[in-house]
Amino acid sequence: METFFSFLAKRVDDCSSLLCVGLDPHPGDLAAPTAGAGRDFCLDLVEQTAAYAAAFKPNAAFFELYGPEGWAALKDVVAAVQVESNRLGSRIPVILDAKRGDIASTAEAYAKSAFENLGVDAITLSPYLGRDSIEPFLGYKERGVFLLCKTSNSGAGDLQDLMVVPVGATHASPLHVHVAHLAQKWNEKDNIGLVVGATQPEALEHVRAAAPDLWFLVPGVGVQGGDLETALRAGLRADGKGVLVNISRGIARAKNPKAEAARLRDAMIEIKYRLDHG
Amino acid sequence: METFFSFLAKRVDDCSSLLCVGLDPHPGDLAAPTAGAGRDFCLDLVEQTAAYAAAFKPNAAFFELYGPEGWAALKDVVAAVQVESNRLGSRIPVILDAKRGDIASTAEAYAKSAFENLGVDAITLSPYLGRDSIEPFLGYKERGVFLLCKTSNSGAGDLQDLMVVPVGATHASPLHVHVAHLAQKWNEKDNIGLVVGATQPEALEHVRAAAPDLWFLVPGVGVQGGDLETALRAGLRADGKGVLVNISRGIARAKNPKAEAARLRDAMIEIKYRLDHG
Repeated sequence: METFFSFLAKRVDDCSSLLCVGLDPHPGDLAAPTAGAGRDFCLDLVEQTAAYAAAFKPNAAFFELYGPEGWAALKDVVAAVQVESNRLGSRIPVILDAKRGDIASTAEAYAKSAFENLGVDAITLSPYLGRDSIEPFLGYKERGVFLLCKTSNSGAGDLQDLMVVPVGATHASPLHVHVAHLAQKWNEKDNIGLVVGATQPEALEHVRAAAPDLWFLVPGVGVQGGDLETALRAGLRADGKGVLVNISRGIARAKNPKAEAARLRDAMIEIKYRLDHG
Repeated sequence: METFFSFLAKRVDDCSSLLCVGLDPHPGDLAAPTAGAGRDFCLDLVEQTAAYAAAFKPNAAFFELYGPEGWAALKDVVAAVQVESNRLGSRIPVILDAKRGDIASTAEAYAKSAFENLGVDAITLSPYLGRDSIEPFLGYKERGVFLLCKTSNSGAGDLQDLMVVPVGATHASPLHVHVAHLAQKWNEKDNIGLVVGATQPEALEHVRAAAPDLWFLVPGVGVQGGDLETALRAGLRADGKGVLVNISRGIARAKNPKAEAARLRDAMIEIKYRLDHG
């Protein structure tokens, strides 16, 4: 049976890329603030960048914004990735950036929404409600979850950097490192990854030490200030995989999104080569 | 200018009730697992219980489940509360239970989705991303947010009970108590409340001590095992307000939801009387 992460690794090999293309139709970037314009914006990005994309990551907020029409547009975007996958002969995973998190009986409904109704391959989740809140998602053995660990925003430290002393532990560690330890422990079915921002490279290093096996979804490179080489150096596993670098506005707002996606893919290949041979 | 919590307090006075009626159309409770059946289930509950409801709380998961049709059903449910409000001559707030939380530029879209597209009065949010992730919601001065503090599920303690030592603090406290302190501090515009489960009454007491002024949305009474009197005793402010007891399945699955809502309202009046005169 294929797990989400074996599927992702295959796609990474097929396209020689660790690039995740974020599909965030910010209203200000659209011809008009409508669901249709958001859909067209994303369909264009998907078509232009699919060859270089290890994954696509639509953010639910920019679709919910338009209510039922927005949700319909999101379904169209997921379907468009399937069309490009068929054209390329290599299936491209879709990660829904939704950051959900609720008690188990409600989480079941969220899991069904993402994996059955929308048909995405993975979803981002908040860890704040604990293990039972993610279990309903883990029950889908061929789908994946990325738990928020250390986010790329300025307020991330308010909770995520607090020093915690877990019961039985001999020393304190930041909450985000504790979350990484929990995720590594909970990953019994090879379907848990972590969201770790590129804006604080030392945090990436600490999280990698705490969770040596997990895939990281890494936002924050580009517009938010994180550096690509630093992020790969700090985050990559020994096997040269384990990091999916998400770029949203950096590609969407480029003059030529296709060329920018190609450039980012090539830059990552070059950095990996240097890391391997340096 | 009316804030969300002055509006809520007015409704609490109008109906002599601290009851929040949860609108969670679990697929198993419906005639069929469809958006239409979910909508009808909620419209019936709204009509039956409006007179006794200080607020209604639909959970987004049970609507998202059906994609665009579910989102349309959710809008119908919000509209139905408006109709009942007009009939009763007293506006009933709608709290969207969505537990969202994302970086500020995305949180803006979620805030617009909830407060402008859906038109709800308040929303539940996760605190995991820190203050800047809730700021876009706080910008709506007549709307409110309830930050997850201590949830009612079995895994809540995985993160929420960790002992943390904030910078500058002299002693450790559980993460959920720290969140309560932050919320009390951040509540400059009278639009932040907390979600505090009834399943651990001592946590309710500690959170009340940390956040003496805030409103609590309290799930977990009934099906999840929490006790009504214990919750009110531990959570009420000195002014006899500050607690909104959410009941979802306990009302929806009752033989007569209207009678059950009335009974719960009366039970709360009686408990409050005893607390005041005992």
